[in-house]
Amino acid sequence: MIDVCVVGLGAIGAFYAFVLEHSGRARVTAVCRSNYNILSEDGIDILAEKIGRYPSWKPYRVFRTASEAADRQYDLIICAFKALPDVTTTPEILQPLLHNTDTFVLIQNGIDIHRDLRKARPDADIISCCAWIDATPLNGGKAVEQTGPDKLSSGLHTDASPSKPSEERGRKALQTFHDILIAGGAGSEIVDNIDAARWRKVLWNVTFSTLCTVLRVPVADLLSKRVLANVLPTIRGMMSEVITVARSLGIEEAQLPEQAAEAVIQSCMNLYSDERNENPSRFKPSMLVDLEADRPMEIEPIVGAIIRSAAEHGVATPRLDTVYAQLKVLQEQLIQRRNT
Amino acid sequence: MIDVCVVGLGAIGAFYAFVLEHSGRARVTAVCRSNYNILSEDGIDILAEKIGRYPSWKPYRVFRTASEAADRQYDLIICAFKALPDVTTTPEILQPLLHNTDTFVLIQNGIDIHRDLRKARPDADIISCCAWIDATPLNGGKAVEQTGPDKLSSGLHTDASPSKPSEERGRKALQTFHDILIAGGAGSEIVDNIDAARWRKVLWNVTFSTLCTVLRVPVADLLSKRVLANVLPTIRGMMSEVITVARSLGIEEAQLPEQAAEAVIQSCMNLYSDERNENPSRFKPSMLVDLEADRPMEIEPIVGAIIRSAAEHGVATPRLDTVYAQLKVLQEQLIQRRNT
Repeated sequence: MIDVCVVGLGAIGAFYAFVLEHSGRARVTAVCRSNYNILSEDGIDILAEKIGRYPSWKPYRVFRTASEAADRQYDLIICAFKALPDVTTTPEILQPLLHNTDTFVLIQNGIDIHRDLRKARPDADIISCCAWIDATPLNGGKAVEQTGPDKLSSGLHTDASPSKPSEERGRKALQTFHDILIAGGAGSEIVDNIDAARWRKVLWNVTFSTLCTVLRVPVADLLSKRVLANVLPTIRGMMSEVITVARSLGIEEAQLPEQAAEAVIQSCMNLYSDERNENPSRFKPSMLVDLEADRPMEIEPIVGAIIRSAAEHGVATPRLDTVYAQLKVLQEQLIQRRNT
Repeated sequence: MIDVCVVGLGAIGAFYAFVLEHSGRARVTAVCRSNYNILSEDGIDILAEKIGRYPSWKPYRVFRTASEAADRQYDLIICAFKALPDVTTTPEILQPLLHNTDTFVLIQNGIDIHRDLRKARPDADIISCCAWIDATPLNGGKAVEQTGPDKLSSGLHTDASPSKPSEERGRKALQTFHDILIAGGAGSEIVDNIDAARWRKVLWNVTFSTLCTVLRVPVADLLSKRVLANVLPTIRGMMSEVITVARSLGIEEAQLPEQAAEAVIQSCMNLYSDERNENPSRFKPSMLVDLEADRPMEIEPIVGAIIRSAAEHGVATPRLDTVYAQLKVLQEQLIQRRNT
């Protein structure tokens, strides 16, 4: 039985915390702020497409703060909170727990999300994951519904660092994490190049999420047949900028194929466009849900990190710059309102 | 006494209709839909900074439709309605009046706004104007308040056409129009190259108006000191694209100086940015006012016409394309809602 601490039990954090315990091989200490009462009192209903329905699930322990959880060492500390470096960095959030493990797992969107943590713990292993999953809180957060396929693509960040740990220890932790996910009934894969995988995932977030957010519309409105002639070239142009930045960082065609962009677009067209679908889903990206709920958005990991890499490598990203500037205006308003 | 028909008596249309009659040299037949009752019953209060306060002004005649006004020939027909070619073209709106003058005056925003009319009346003179004026409807449209300086920059569209009228007739009409405006107390200037003047004016609309509209924020939020580092480069980039398109159409530095862009930015900074101004104006561009009122926006004359020219001349406009695609999504929703 391994000890895991999960920080942030939104829909995705709660789903994977459940999966870990469901494996019978891990016990989970949960750190959660907004849904502490639900988790500690009645528990949460897990409604998972493949794994099944588990009413009133409670993790091994539930705490409101990281300090309370810092009473032991963990085999893994999993960060499933939103990455908001312009509000609070990951090391700041983890502060009391920062030395309570040698292996961190980041289940978060975006690019370069591990950098702050790498600086704060140069000796630790950092695994990060792209969650290809639709999980939604229901009933005021009393339930989490997971629909369709689920897959966590996980990999070890092997960035060179003077005090870099032996990769062997990291790879072993990654394998254990993967085995437990599979044992718990979830989809899981280990990827060789997690950076490339993250760039692939960000193709969706940096285009569909950002445009829906700026315009405050569901994906279906972005892909309405009446506007496709203008929207698709813009999305393709943005994705092409993303791939050019990735190439400048050494991520090659084999790891992030040019075609990945069109694959994302076509899968969205199938799900959301009235050109292909009589009743397209009215799904809203979580970035827009955050905006509508007056919560800061993950614009730094999803867009900011890309345009900063672009600037460092002299890559022009006019479309991404434009959308980033727009999001920045909205984000500053969210942060201001939060502070007053 | 000349006969003038003014179609569209929003704040700017009403202000100039008043100025024309105030000169004592013109009588105005007004065609107005939404404020017909106000104008025909109580009249409208004109509150003009320089000219003064004129309560309950009524034009010579007021009609609800263009057909009713088509009972005579006019020396000038002035179009002061919004240019919405994606909803209704100017010739469609003017249809019953299309042959009731030889001289049209367009007081409208954007680029290429005269093209439809030129096709419908290749033999007519077309004057167009850039209105550098802040005029606002007050009190539910019962008053129009004009503040600060006002200037109408007017010029003759001299595009070659097989049946082009003698330029002399056009220049004479332009001079008369200018003289009457001055006699009525307004600011007026005749410009040699009205196309270049329109490109200069569009620098403001295509950047500040569009970005405020997409984000649904006043200009002040766009120029908040907390976001300037991202917003200003985007605005400069967009303006640079506009100027490159204008150059490809033969509009040279002398007519549209590179510096014009920075001049627009600096004047906006002075008015709207909290970096320069303790209580910046919370002014919202009319495009945003239209969006908030669920009315179609002038995206075609202000953005669409530019990117179409760019495409014809092989000029890359990635930022403008992005913002146009965004506006197009919003515009289609406005048009759909209007049709249902």
